[in-house]
Amino acid sequence: MNYCSHCGRPVVLKVPPGDNLPRHVCEACQTIHYQNPKIVAGCIPEWEDQILLCRRAIEPRTGFWTFPAGFMEAGEDTAQAAARETLEEAKASVEIASLYALLSLPHVSQVYVVFRGTLRNLDFGAGTESLEVQLFPWDKMPWDRLAFPVIHEALARYVEDRRRGQYQLQVGVVARRIPSE
Amino acid sequence: MNYCSHCGRPVVLKVPPGDNLPRHVCEACQTIHYQNPKIVAGCIPEWEDQILLCRRAIEPRTGFWTFPAGFMEAGEDTAQAAARETLEEAKASVEIASLYALLSLPHVSQVYVVFRGTLRNLDFGAGTESLEVQLFPWDKMPWDRLAFPVIHEALARYVEDRRRGQYQLQVGVVARRIPSE
Repeated sequence: MNYCSHCGRPVVLKVPPGDNLPRHVCEACQTIHYQNPKIVAGCIPEWEDQILLCRRAIEPRTGFWTFPAGFMEAGEDTAQAAARETLEEAKASVEIASLYALLSLPHVSQVYVVFRGTLRNLDFGAGTESLEVQLFPWDKMPWDRLAFPVIHEALARYVEDRRRGQYQLQVGVVARRIPSE
Repeated sequence: MNYCSHCGRPVVLKVPPGDNLPRHVCEACQTIHYQNPKIVAGCIPEWEDQILLCRRAIEPRTGFWTFPAGFMEAGEDTAQAAARETLEEAKASVEIASLYALLSLPHVSQVYVVFRGTLRNLDFGAGTESLEVQLFPWDKMPWDRLAFPVIHEALARYVEDRRRGQYQLQVGVVARRIPSE
């Protein structure tokens, strides 16, 4: 951030009075610009013993697999955002079942909110951000071709829960990076 | 948003190619400025049959009660953010126990991530954003003096769970506004 989005003058990085962290501050109009973590809403879409994954058509990590997930929009709730991403990336309609994981990525200031969802039917296909969309048996994930560490972590926990026969809410931190981060 | 925070030129509101929502776009440097929901991390600090609440010293809703909660910072995880807010607002040290609620406020583009926490001791007091800090028995909340609908909703669910003797993860939407919203 170089300029004030409110008045267009240059900003400075300083600790505002009463605060304890440096912020981008406009000394012309006094606006303080906070930078906050972003929410990525995702869905693990289930169909009997399979889950639906998408192969990414966009950078970063084009060609690698993920479950549908993307930045939550203003004016949505978290479950809506997860269902919307599933529709956009996999052209699939899900009924959101339950919250499955809340995973923080402090190194990139993101929080993944991941739901389990039930596919309403087998009508799916590649959205504009996907190369292809495919059902995988839950015990045959494409482990070496997953897009991000957080996707690996969420699916590893999911598969372990499924093996045990009981889902447990997963709250954690994923600090690993992909090479490009 | 009026100006590009990257180059300082005026932005326009338009739907970028391949997108389906209007964004603030800089036609000089091509930066697209997304506006995403913010995470509010909160904690219900427990001490036997009581929980610790803070009376707000700042606007909005000065003088009304809340559990410790505030905007998550870049570089934190959600549990850290909840513990930090508890330390800042109530000068209290908590051990985060479990995620209790994920409540979306689409009308203000916020998501509350609320943990249950256990007070490590009874050493607490009013931080700079609090007028006073006080333990309340869980069945004697100051219902008519709570700061926000989301605080009311989270505590109402908490008290009901406590009455039943079993905590259940709460995922929901709180669309009600305070008069000033």
